[in-house]
Amino acid sequence: MTIDFQAVLERIAAEMTPLAGRSGTVASYIPALARVPAAHFGLALRTREGLEASAGDANVPFSIQSISKLFTLTLAMRRMGDDLWERIGREPSGNPFNSLVQLEYEQGKPRNPFINAGAIAIADRLLGHGETKAELLQLMSDLCDEPIEFDAEVAASEASTGYRNFALANFMKSFGKLDNDVDDVLDFYFHQCAIRMSCLQLARAAGFLCRDGAHPQDGRGEVTSERHARRINALMLTCGTYDAAGDVAFSIGLPCKSGVGGGIVAVVPDQLTLCVWSPALDASGNSYLGMLALERFAASTGLSIF
Amino acid sequence: MTIDFQAVLERIAAEMTPLAGRSGTVASYIPALARVPAAHFGLALRTREGLEASAGDANVPFSIQSISKLFTLTLAMRRMGDDLWERIGREPSGNPFNSLVQLEYEQGKPRNPFINAGAIAIADRLLGHGETKAELLQLMSDLCDEPIEFDAEVAASEASTGYRNFALANFMKSFGKLDNDVDDVLDFYFHQCAIRMSCLQLARAAGFLCRDGAHPQDGRGEVTSERHARRINALMLTCGTYDAAGDVAFSIGLPCKSGVGGGIVAVVPDQLTLCVWSPALDASGNSYLGMLALERFAASTGLSIF
Amino acid sequence: MTIDFQAVLERIAAEMTPLAGRSGTVASYIPALARVPAAHFGLALRTREGLEASAGDANVPFSIQSISKLFTLTLAMRRMGDDLWERIGREPSGNPFNSLVQLEYEQGKPRNPFINAGAIAIADRLLGHGETKAELLQLMSDLCDEPIEFDAEVAASEASTGYRNFALANFMKSFGKLDNDVDDVLDFYFHQCAIRMSCLQLARAAGFLCRDGAHPQDGRGEVTSERHARRINALMLTCGTYDAAGDVAFSIGLPCKSGVGGGIVAVVPDQLTLCVWSPALDASGNSYLGMLALERFAASTGLSIF
Amino acid sequence: MTIDFQAVLERIAAEMTPLAGRSGTVASYIPALARVPAAHFGLALRTREGLEASAGDANVPFSIQSISKLFTLTLAMRRMGDDLWERIGREPSGNPFNSLVQLEYEQGKPRNPFINAGAIAIADRLLGHGETKAELLQLMSDLCDEPIEFDAEVAASEASTGYRNFALANFMKSFGKLDNDVDDVLDFYFHQCAIRMSCLQLARAAGFLCRDGAHPQDGRGEVTSERHARRINALMLTCGTYDAAGDVAFSIGLPCKSGVGGGIVAVVPDQLTLCVWSPALDASGNSYLGMLALERFAASTGLSIF
Repeated sequence: MTIDFQAVLERIAAEMTPLAGRSGTVASYIPALARVPAAHFGLALRTREGLEASAGDANVPFSIQSISKLFTLTLAMRRMGDDLWERIGREPSGNPFNSLVQLEYEQGKPRNPFINAGAIAIADRLLGHGETKAELLQLMSDLCDEPIEFDAEVAASEASTGYRNFALANFMKSFGKLDNDVDDVLDFYFHQCAIRMSCLQLARAAGFLCRDGAHPQDGRGEVTSERHARRINALMLTCGTYDAAGDVAFSIGLPCKSGVGGGIVAVVPDQLTLCVWSPALDASGNSYLGMLALERFAASTGLSIF
Repeated sequence: MTIDFQAVLERIAAEMTPLAGRSGTVASYIPALARVPAAHFGLALRTREGLEASAGDANVPFSIQSISKLFTLTLAMRRMGDDLWERIGREPSGNPFNSLVQLEYEQGKPRNPFINAGAIAIADRLLGHGETKAELLQLMSDLCDEPIEFDAEVAASEASTGYRNFALANFMKSFGKLDNDVDDVLDFYFHQCAIRMSCLQLARAAGFLCRDGAHPQDGRGEVTSERHARRINALMLTCGTYDAAGDVAFSIGLPCKSGVGGGIVAVVPDQLTLCVWSPALDASGNSYLGMLALERFAASTGLSIF
Repeated sequence: MTIDFQAVLERIAAEMTPLAGRSGTVASYIPALARVPAAHFGLALRTREGLEASAGDANVPFSIQSISKLFTLTLAMRRMGDDLWERIGREPSGNPFNSLVQLEYEQGKPRNPFINAGAIAIADRLLGHGETKAELLQLMSDLCDEPIEFDAEVAASEASTGYRNFALANFMKSFGKLDNDVDDVLDFYFHQCAIRMSCLQLARAAGFLCRDGAHPQDGRGEVTSERHARRINALMLTCGTYDAAGDVAFSIGLPCKSGVGGGIVAVVPDQLTLCVWSPALDASGNSYLGMLALERFAASTGLSIF
Repeated sequence: MTIDFQAVLERIAAEMTPLAGRSGTVASYIPALARVPAAHFGLALRTREGLEASAGDANVPFSIQSISKLFTLTLAMRRMGDDLWERIGREPSGNPFNSLVQLEYEQGKPRNPFINAGAIAIADRLLGHGETKAELLQLMSDLCDEPIEFDAEVAASEASTGYRNFALANFMKSFGKLDNDVDDVLDFYFHQCAIRMSCLQLARAAGFLCRDGAHPQDGRGEVTSERHARRINALMLTCGTYDAAGDVAFSIGLPCKSGVGGGIVAVVPDQLTLCVWSPALDASGNSYLGMLALERFAASTGLSIF
């Protein structure tokens, strides 16, 4: 069966665009995010073979926020292999309110790399291995073959209002679970969240996840091993969408990683990567229309890992 | 690619059998489980097309325990459709100690159908729809085309020592979340856990999960819809192995449902169902060798949903 | 300084009676409590020397409910001395939602004798030492020198709707922290809660707490030792009024034990015991007017342990 | 009955001194505390009338740490009256691990003024009312009629290692429950903990708590109202000794406030204030010998609020 992906995406965009901004709420904790118009909708995909399709605002850059955790995790797994898991778990985190609770019970070891505490721990590990913000940008640019930048205003706003992240980082530090200075770790973390990319760029950049770890740009070797790529997909499925992971697996059936900027990256293993974007969020903090679009995509293509 | 499954299973059984009983601990909370010899190992699979393969103690019946939750969930989804989810969540449960904690925060609504509280809630719903223990046995017998029985001694022991399950059921009742009498609900629940089946019988019985919901025995219609079958697989992946679900997704990459009797049912969607059994359990309550065997199976066949 | 207690109580009754039933809610979880008219108010006291004063509905019997925990604790301390504290803590319980949470963390050991779990544990210990319901009634009758009875309807209602208490008892049993049969323990517990007494009877019965443990009726020896009497007062202050203990110490400054029947017993060490009753409860489950009356009493007499 | 307090204190010191440093552990989280010799023991008291008694190392200054919370609370109640309680509760905090848990459930409102979060919240309120570190020192000096100083090394060490306090303050800030800059609030808090005083100075400074709020130095008016003084005593009893408050009420029966420097201030309302010091701490973080000495004091004098 061959699917006309361009037609599928256009049909979804046609359905979603009139709804854009009608439901959900744009993240408002920092001004630079709050002023993004809610009425955006875009999506793009790239197949294992390199075919691309897109519709709507697929080329409009947005703040990737927690989607960045996918790439820092990839870097950290590459750098440290299984040693990474001494400081970070691989289990879903249960209830939202558990963030600090669980960190307390588990003595400063975050449950998984996709909750904030886990991503902060990964930033600490990357700094400890000499990784820099510049190198992260370099990786992102290389993956999508276009220059990628931080949004300096977003990074600065995150830093000046990120009290909960300061609380998390200091809490882990109090358990001896951060090696680097709290301010340095959070500077890295706030910058990774402030990367700006479009749907098409993210669909490309995540491409290694549907091609056994191979670089999305042919001839550039592998980003990570096949084994690691499949394991990252597994973590996305069980932990990638905040407290809605069980529901997303149930309703969509694809590994996904979302961000409060309204983007969601999804993977159909061995076939394609997909990115959808619409800024208004549902109660779980995932893009409201993004989730709806992914359900339509899964239903109309029959693509599901289950 | 065709895989010689019989050869694969034999190789795994040859590796595992010498290790059987060497690590882990047999469940000992009731005498009938405690006296099962630790040194058993068996596994069996059945493909979508009906081919079967098995090795080791694949025909020795054991107490299926929580694997039964797979079948009561299937029945309840068939009976109630999406109404089922008013009383039961679909999210992983986080830490083990959370069982009662979460039930308290969530006012008696269990996080998912595979934790004890969730399965008790499902038993309540089934009773409320007129389902009986006899009908459950009838379903199991029909699925594997052989008579299936309860182990009366196990059911009686569960009832006489199941204080924590009595606590859970009374707690849900105190929140108005059980319709039926606590004793009736637990009688059903203790019996479902006391069903005796072999690896081969379970691989057959779960067959509908790899064939779009169709009955494992051709010509007998569908057990559930394709949509429901895929969703049950999703729930197995995110919630099927107690607090190790994230790790199992990461290391094995297949939907699994385990029981403290030492059995684990796994599904390769669209391809096959597999059951492995070895009584000694790891710290998470999953079969120690069973998990190891599933890792080998996934690694040697390359079968993974990711 | 001599205080005209009769005048004080009459003044308080005159202020409170018009307010009776205006604020708060009568406990409604069982019909026999729900149908008690909200508009009752009574109070009575008895000094160390045996002088009595009373006003309002001081002779109307009501369901003493958790006030009974004071007397079963006294019995258990007498029977077991410090061994009692192996199974029961002496610390305030923090938040209401913690009941089961704390029991889980602390492996079935209740935080203190005045939360339900603690009182159930004490009932278990008393049964284990051969104490009976009849002997408890005998003690209560002896303390106030009048026959005291259970309210059979209340006891039966508690038993038929007490799912949360069944949950607590089964949960402790699952940790091996109850020696006796759950049903027997709860039968004792539900009966102690169903004792009917008036304010005057309770002020008399608790008299040993203001007279170094000596029996309220002169010439009958001691109910408990001086050391135990002072320690029971300490437990009342830190744990006697559910989750409002800190506030009660702050605002009233006297050891108190309340019940959902609307009664509150208070102690002025070395001087007097006091009982106030009004059925409508505040959000913490303490008598709304009872608390107000105790604040007036403390303010107008200057009696406070601080 | 008149008690020869000097003889009582000498007897206790004679019993305790040989035990000093034998049990418990000196706080070691900062070097300046860790190097205090464990073998110190001192105690001092001052009666309502101004009589003083002391024994052992009663004049050796030590780091008062959390005992400072008593004085900042007094200041804040004086400044704000009941408005203070909008941001801070008055209930015991339950388990140790609850610090952040409870703060999360209660949306950044600390349970009471004596846990770290509560004292940080009070420091924030004091800053908001224009209070300064210099004024706090001025108050302390005035109360004991001698110049009192901060230990600059301790304050600096607290600041450089106080990750958990940074976590708490940032967490409250994330809930909008701190008005001032986190660094400013913690600078005040770390300094108040670094005040150095001796037993005798603390017994004097706390004197207003046993004399209806009147200044310990006659003729200087009142430190706080009688009502506030009694309420502070109540808070000390229910919340003043970390997670041992129930036990301290039970065993000692006096309002106490302890610090990790090994000091404990106790109050006998209307009669005297007492301070004991010995650096080695028990598992709850209270001075091991200090608690023992207070038990002896209460037992030998019969002084108890119960």
